[in-house]
Amino acid sequence: MSAKAYLEANKDRFLNELLDLLRIPSVSARSEHKADMLACAEAVKARLLEAGADTVTIYPTDGHPIVYGEKISDPTKPTVLVYGHYDVQPADPLELWHSGPFEPVIKDGKIFARGACDDKGQFYMHVKALECMRTEGEVPTNIKFLIEGEEEVGSPNLATFVKANKDLLKCDVILISDTAMISLDTPSIDVGVRGLTYVEVEVTGPNRDLHSGVYGGAVANPATMLCQMIANLHDENNHITIPGFYDDVLVATDAERAKMAEAPFDEAEFKADLGVAEVWGEKGYSTNERTGIRPTLEVNGIWGGYTGEGSKTVLPSKAFAKISCRLVPNQSSHKIEAMLMEHLQKIAPAGVQVVVRPHHGGEPYVTPIDSIPYQAAAAAIRDSFGKDPIPVRGGGSIPICALFEQELGVKIVFMGFGLDSDNLHSPNEKFNIENYYKGIETIPYFHKHFAEMMK
Amino acid sequence: MSAKAYLEANKDRFLNELLDLLRIPSVSARSEHKADMLACAEAVKARLLEAGADTVTIYPTDGHPIVYGEKISDPTKPTVLVYGHYDVQPADPLELWHSGPFEPVIKDGKIFARGACDDKGQFYMHVKALECMRTEGEVPTNIKFLIEGEEEVGSPNLATFVKANKDLLKCDVILISDTAMISLDTPSIDVGVRGLTYVEVEVTGPNRDLHSGVYGGAVANPATMLCQMIANLHDENNHITIPGFYDDVLVATDAERAKMAEAPFDEAEFKADLGVAEVWGEKGYSTNERTGIRPTLEVNGIWGGYTGEGSKTVLPSKAFAKISCRLVPNQSSHKIEAMLMEHLQKIAPAGVQVVVRPHHGGEPYVTPIDSIPYQAAAAAIRDSFGKDPIPVRGGGSIPICALFEQELGVKIVFMGFGLDSDNLHSPNEKFNIENYYKGIETIPYFHKHFAEMMK
Repeated sequence: MSAKAYLEANKDRFLNELLDLLRIPSVSARSEHKADMLACAEAVKARLLEAGADTVTIYPTDGHPIVYGEKISDPTKPTVLVYGHYDVQPADPLELWHSGPFEPVIKDGKIFARGACDDKGQFYMHVKALECMRTEGEVPTNIKFLIEGEEEVGSPNLATFVKANKDLLKCDVILISDTAMISLDTPSIDVGVRGLTYVEVEVTGPNRDLHSGVYGGAVANPATMLCQMIANLHDENNHITIPGFYDDVLVATDAERAKMAEAPFDEAEFKADLGVAEVWGEKGYSTNERTGIRPTLEVNGIWGGYTGEGSKTVLPSKAFAKISCRLVPNQSSHKIEAMLMEHLQKIAPAGVQVVVRPHHGGEPYVTPIDSIPYQAAAAAIRDSFGKDPIPVRGGGSIPICALFEQELGVKIVFMGFGLDSDNLHSPNEKFNIENYYKGIETIPYFHKHFAEMMK
Repeated sequence: MSAKAYLEANKDRFLNELLDLLRIPSVSARSEHKADMLACAEAVKARLLEAGADTVTIYPTDGHPIVYGEKISDPTKPTVLVYGHYDVQPADPLELWHSGPFEPVIKDGKIFARGACDDKGQFYMHVKALECMRTEGEVPTNIKFLIEGEEEVGSPNLATFVKANKDLLKCDVILISDTAMISLDTPSIDVGVRGLTYVEVEVTGPNRDLHSGVYGGAVANPATMLCQMIANLHDENNHITIPGFYDDVLVATDAERAKMAEAPFDEAEFKADLGVAEVWGEKGYSTNERTGIRPTLEVNGIWGGYTGEGSKTVLPSKAFAKISCRLVPNQSSHKIEAMLMEHLQKIAPAGVQVVVRPHHGGEPYVTPIDSIPYQAAAAAIRDSFGKDPIPVRGGGSIPICALFEQELGVKIVFMGFGLDSDNLHSPNEKFNIENYYKGIETIPYFHKHFAEMMK
């Protein structure tokens, strides 16, 4: 039976298995979910074995465990390492979900659940693809699965694992489904991901909350000072003002920008989808360029003072913000982190103290489109979609990519089947069922083409 | 027995009664404390009757009840209306309290509890002063007590009550202990309170939380936009930038400012107490002027996006702030509220929507120092402290003052016995026991001098 026919015959079961996986609240950022993380790792192991992996091992780390499995059919064949993650982002704000984040529901052909697309739905396509390929006879490649549990917190323990297990992870390409395509009608392949720097800022004014009448106007208010600092991070053209921030950015050529501009983009539809009257961003760049080839700085959270019901006339002692930057090729996460931390100290107004704490970061990454991995992925897309994919730069980050290339000496290819509108990291995350099935259909073509091209 | 001797003989009981009152969590801003508010009103009524009031009535309102009691000894005597409030500010952030906000503890001669000074400790001095005066024989004035339960939420129902009960509340002066003095060594009387305008700002960007990688840099971030708006509310000299904001401010004369400058102020001590390296405020004014004669604008709270443990790469849909202004004589709370609301809309960046909701406000108030009420209060201070009080402008607000004068046609005198360092509205609110007793000692002198001066 062909892999595609087997998929057709097993669609309902493939869907139900994913729903079961989505019911496990594997939130890596929250310590109260430690047991859920273990349960999820065990479930991934069981599913991999059922799908036909020869061996699967759960490796403990200083944080959440790594699941590693493999199906080695012939040492002379090329080896594909599939990387994915079973952990998910926190689900809050819970009140904005239309259904429970860990009680998946299907509506209008979409699976709604935290992790539906990022990344349970996407890595699980590879597990099911293995099962489908086995019905065709011998799998054309050796396949290794590296499914970690800390991607959403910056993969703090994966680097150690990769460095210590280079032989185990030896491969010819790394295949990742943790990104999006433009649409099923306009398939695309991300040729890059942005890097990330993430810090938390604590601004302290007076040593205690004060009465805003008795002290207001005479003591620096840390909330106001934090706002002034954040306001200062962009200039009137929405350029980031941190000295040296853009120094290492590889400037795209006019030819590259012209090619990028070919990707379909409907600004009216973009604005309508988000409910905004205007787009926003760095002057001189299009929306796709702003999220693709330009670094950015966003406030991910801010808080301080009285935030409850009604009014409280307090001049707060402290105010906080979480701030992150997305980085583009040739920028260094560590360098930008140091720059950002130093700059926040430098612009701190007199009368307040500023402490900046780094969270996780990650380096940007780009896949050359003339490489065999990209060409194999493009051929696979042609087989299942009947048209060439458009190469695009993704805006998100997969922190471990640069390390993979450095330690394992191979290229990474991103075959993402999600959509930008899938509400990743947001309430009502979803994954279109059709995209899920299309991924399972396409992946076997990749293995076939990659094996042929590597001959 | 003299009132002072009676106080000496009953100090411990007077203290314990206050502690009992402080154990009732009468937080007017939180609907879950509705029953506590009623219990507190009942306790106030019981204590007033024990202290010698002829009648005490609890008047229901659309919000929390008003307690009214009176001791009328002779209709030909002048009448003093004592105003105070039994409600308190919310206690959070709870984690910063060294002991439970509603489990009063005594340490180093200070009572630590929410409401210890603001205003349970201070209005209760008047209840105990009545009890003391009765031991001397006939009380020199008629005394009316108006103790409300909504001062901390802007007295939304008191105006209606006052307007409907002008005969009941008829008096010759209103006496309020809800302010501070410089110190027991340097007694002072507040000759004014600032007005208040308080609004809540809601900034909406995209219609849902977004992935900051996929959309970051291309959509206006409401947290960043709110920061820009707040940063724009002060200029580089810390003047408030709202057009027309200062138009109605009565500018203090050089002579007035020179007199104010006589109040002792130790900047080094001020900074050390608050743990700040620098004072802050409007250029061209001293710290005392900034909190006394100048209007101010403070951020009382700010929130938006992810504020939990760890990191979440979200571009939030919404960000909020609570912002309030303190106003000085001749400024109108309603006029400033309209100005502030309009200005926030005007400076809202493209790409976000701004909604501004008003909370309670209040008008500024000043007591002339050549009035009989002020002179009687000054004479009372001289009797108990052995020195003249310094007239100062308080920074806080008592929203109902302007209405009292308008409806009842009498002056208000502020005899406050708290200290600026009492942590009003903050964790670890306190009231020095010595100040409590000194208040109970001083109040009978006020009634005596006021009765004599009114002859």
